[in-house]
Amino acid sequence: MSLRTLPDPPAGTLMNRSAFRVLFGDTDAAGIVYHANYLRWCEAGRGELMRDAGVSLHGLIRQGVLTPVVEAQVRYLIPVRYDDVVEVVTWVERLQAASVTFAQVIEVQGERVALARISLACLGPDKRPVRMPPELECFRPPQQSG
Amino acid sequence: MSLRTLPDPPAGTLMNRSAFRVLFGDTDAAGIVYHANYLRWCEAGRGELMRDAGVSLHGLIRQGVLTPVVEAQVRYLIPVRYDDVVEVVTWVERLQAASVTFAQVIEVQGERVALARISLACLGPDKRPVRMPPELECFRPPQQSG
Amino acid sequence: MSLRTLPDPPAGTLMNRSAFRVLFGDTDAAGIVYHANYLRWCEAGRGELMRDAGVSLHGLIRQGVLTPVVEAQVRYLIPVRYDDVVEVVTWVERLQAASVTFAQVIEVQGERVALARISLACLGPDKRPVRMPPELECFRPPQQSG
Amino acid sequence: MSLRTLPDPPAGTLMNRSAFRVLFGDTDAAGIVYHANYLRWCEAGRGELMRDAGVSLHGLIRQGVLTPVVEAQVRYLIPVRYDDVVEVVTWVERLQAASVTFAQVIEVQGERVALARISLACLGPDKRPVRMPPELECFRPPQQSG
Repeated sequence: MSLRTLPDPPAGTLMNRSAFRVLFGDTDAAGIVYHANYLRWCEAGRGELMRDAGVSLHGLIRQGVLTPVVEAQVRYLIPVRYDDVVEVVTWVERLQAASVTFAQVIEVQGERVALARISLACLGPDKRPVRMPPELECFRPPQQSG
Repeated sequence: MSLRTLPDPPAGTLMNRSAFRVLFGDTDAAGIVYHANYLRWCEAGRGELMRDAGVSLHGLIRQGVLTPVVEAQVRYLIPVRYDDVVEVVTWVERLQAASVTFAQVIEVQGERVALARISLACLGPDKRPVRMPPELECFRPPQQSG
Repeated sequence: MSLRTLPDPPAGTLMNRSAFRVLFGDTDAAGIVYHANYLRWCEAGRGELMRDAGVSLHGLIRQGVLTPVVEAQVRYLIPVRYDDVVEVVTWVERLQAASVTFAQVIEVQGERVALARISLACLGPDKRPVRMPPELECFRPPQQSG
Repeated sequence: MSLRTLPDPPAGTLMNRSAFRVLFGDTDAAGIVYHANYLRWCEAGRGELMRDAGVSLHGLIRQGVLTPVVEAQVRYLIPVRYDDVVEVVTWVERLQAASVTFAQVIEVQGERVALARISLACLGPDKRPVRMPPELECFRPPQQSG
């Protein structure tokens, strides 16, 4: 699944919108945000979406459940600069038994500057796939029956 | 083009292999390398490949030519840990008029731990696409005629 | 000047208090925030303090004025963990002709977890010291006469 | 102890010299290396010094021994730029029962560009101070009797 475009989420999809100020430490000598650093905002956005639903990643970790990123795709549309405020819109695109794929749109002043699709696995204390925490069910996309 | 697998490069493809030691600063609280930090090694690997061909990114920048990342895909296969030595193998998968796509394989002790495909554009001082520097021609994949 | 302690600012000192959520990307394999990453929060705190006074670092840069860090000291008192909310309190400890020293206290739930003292120079387009922007005068500590 | 200068180590001091290439990801929009990122090279330099003496930080961690940074001081003398090769010279300035202070000089083409002094504590599995591993004794500065 390429990242040419990111389909709009179906009506009713739970989404989170979080804002971050671009730091000097996010930029590089080309005067724009270094491409790897978008993934930090994406992580923050996913964390906020989960927090909205009462899921604590911190709590999961304490139970020995890890949710490593297994695939990341980012498409960079418009450069982002120091002092810009980026807004990250995050929702769940696909929820499977032991993995979840998030779609994320990054905007500056209402304009899309980057798109991301990030997949996480869910691993138990023995590092084998385990079922996603039930709290994530609220994120299941409407068209995707369990 | 998904990143389920990364085809082996055709015989005769110019490649660079560079090694990096995993720092504490690369890891996260899950005890493994944070997913965004793989992109730093990838950047280093591309820089070394270009250096092999006598292309100086530094020189390009001084001429006002920038090569921003326009798309990044990473697939994470096996976690990488503190003190591991990662080896990054880099080659050009596709060379176009004003963009280039690199394929990168990250290995630890000969085992593939991650795959990446990174596309860069080539922009002139007026931020419009310009032809890639001619030195990059040496990277053109054999099967891809100019 | 060591960083054993950080004297409280005199009454009337302009201060900024900003909060940041700890990301996974801030932590390391010891399960705590990597020491270098505190400097990012400190940068963000100084930026917010300047914003409070209407000073735009972005505007300075456009005029060719750079404010590089010339000295940084951080004392780490208590480890900070994923998902903590850190609050950074920032004020100017000393304002000189062509440099400024910030004091910064980092707190989690009201407890001091780190102290920092960061000095910046002010350089003009020819990279020579220039006078600090006059807007910074509002930060001059009360006991320090110009 | 301020960091105005860093005294040369006594003759016979065990030192490590390691080189790192500056990445785009190390720099910021001022066109120079972001101040926090020097601490990554310092971490790498300390790791190499310990490796020279057969001390594995990795091994310590597996025994539940952590060595958190408790104080960091960096003085930035000359800006460092993309593609520069920095060399980090590391030695032990002071070895105490449950802490160690490293001195680090960062050079580019033989010129000092930054100085650092970094102190680490040694904590056992219960997070209380424990004696430094005996392998570190080889780093004890000549003038400092145990």
